[in-house]
Amino acid sequence: MISKGQIKTITSLHQKKYRQKLGSFIAEGPKIISDLVESGLKLQQVFSTQSLPTANFDVELMSEKELQKISALKTANSMLAVFEIPIREEIEESGLIVALDAIRDPGNLGTIIRLCDWFGISHLVCTEDTADCYNPKVVQASMGSIARVNVHYVALKDYLQKTNLPIFGAFMDGDSVYETILPNVGILVMGNEANGISTEISETIQHRLSIPNFSKNNNAESLNVATATAVLLSEFRRTIGK
Amino acid sequence: MISKGQIKTITSLHQKKYRQKLGSFIAEGPKIISDLVESGLKLQQVFSTQSLPTANFDVELMSEKELQKISALKTANSMLAVFEIPIREEIEESGLIVALDAIRDPGNLGTIIRLCDWFGISHLVCTEDTADCYNPKVVQASMGSIARVNVHYVALKDYLQKTNLPIFGAFMDGDSVYETILPNVGILVMGNEANGISTEISETIQHRLSIPNFSKNNNAESLNVATATAVLLSEFRRTIGK
Repeated sequence: MISKGQIKTITSLHQKKYRQKLGSFIAEGPKIISDLVESGLKLQQVFSTQSLPTANFDVELMSEKELQKISALKTANSMLAVFEIPIREEIEESGLIVALDAIRDPGNLGTIIRLCDWFGISHLVCTEDTADCYNPKVVQASMGSIARVNVHYVALKDYLQKTNLPIFGAFMDGDSVYETILPNVGILVMGNEANGISTEISETIQHRLSIPNFSKNNNAESLNVATATAVLLSEFRRTIGK
Repeated sequence: MISKGQIKTITSLHQKKYRQKLGSFIAEGPKIISDLVESGLKLQQVFSTQSLPTANFDVELMSEKELQKISALKTANSMLAVFEIPIREEIEESGLIVALDAIRDPGNLGTIIRLCDWFGISHLVCTEDTADCYNPKVVQASMGSIARVNVHYVALKDYLQKTNLPIFGAFMDGDSVYETILPNVGILVMGNEANGISTEISETIQHRLSIPNFSKNNNAESLNVATATAVLLSEFRRTIGK
């Protein structure tokens, strides 16, 4: 039986303020949880509606109704775990880095973290007003990739002004990414869902990239930021992928 | 003041059964609504919390509280419209076509519709168990593209067995898409979020494609289906995009 105090503590982790205060976050579903454990994240508590004879960690059994009380999902999965927020590796001045300027939607951020993992990108650098990477919705959308991608929250303009890496950014009016020779090392900046890259950040960008619009009469106005990131990262990687 | 009968009719449109019975669907938010109107969709009713002196259609004013009662969103936008479900153009045996095998997540389907629009694809052919394209969540994620992409629900295996177009499919173990010469005409099949393309549909596919995995130790297990579709459609288009 879960106590009222435990319910209060765990549901408080739905909020960024308490995640930061307690240094913990939640993940839901056996698949993501085991993936995070395998990636070396430190497990603090596990709650499940089913016993797990094969699991190498203690599980607290509870009813579906109880699990729903602590879940951040509309319909709870069969398992919820509390993990310690890991200490991130420092940003390296090498390889390909993705930078996010005010991405607000947790689903988009989670999908971008999953993309970074797939395309072998270790560092994701975000403005302070980007969604929190330990938001339960971000964790769910990242599908375990949150353990393998270092997400940093920084004063992005300062960071971009100091780096020696070439800086690329996604714009509606940039050069076609299909006609641009892309390096293996650099920073790709993606902008806010509604407004794109801010004027302030734009000033630091050396190479403006666009994905050509093939729609009839250019009727399609834009791509979702996560799908645009997918296309651009694929373009950065496709030469070495051959 | 909205009547109880109106509330009942409009909320019934949150369900596929009633959308099919009434031949109507809902869209929320002034941006998507005006986009659908401009694309020629037939508006049946508009409800708004603000008067719109410039709109060229009748708007029924209501309070935020009333709008929330008919909204399919967790937090209602300022405007909700009821549209007539349009009659779709027949599938043409030309150009690039996307086929979906049991895509269940409305957000993924909406994002794929938006991608099809961007990459100039007029026809999206889906198995009957794919999410309904007039589901409010699909409409929201498609950002107005639902009016420009013809979505068809068919017996997909039969369709693929009868077509003369070359058939490509996304698999975990296919040939690298970066090393495959892709035509401008053909069908690209994308599979279910958890299970990929079914065995039954796989049998009809001539060219198995994969997006190479660049993650460390191949730790990343998969890409989200919408982001994988983005990468593959970009690859199909990049040659003509140059």
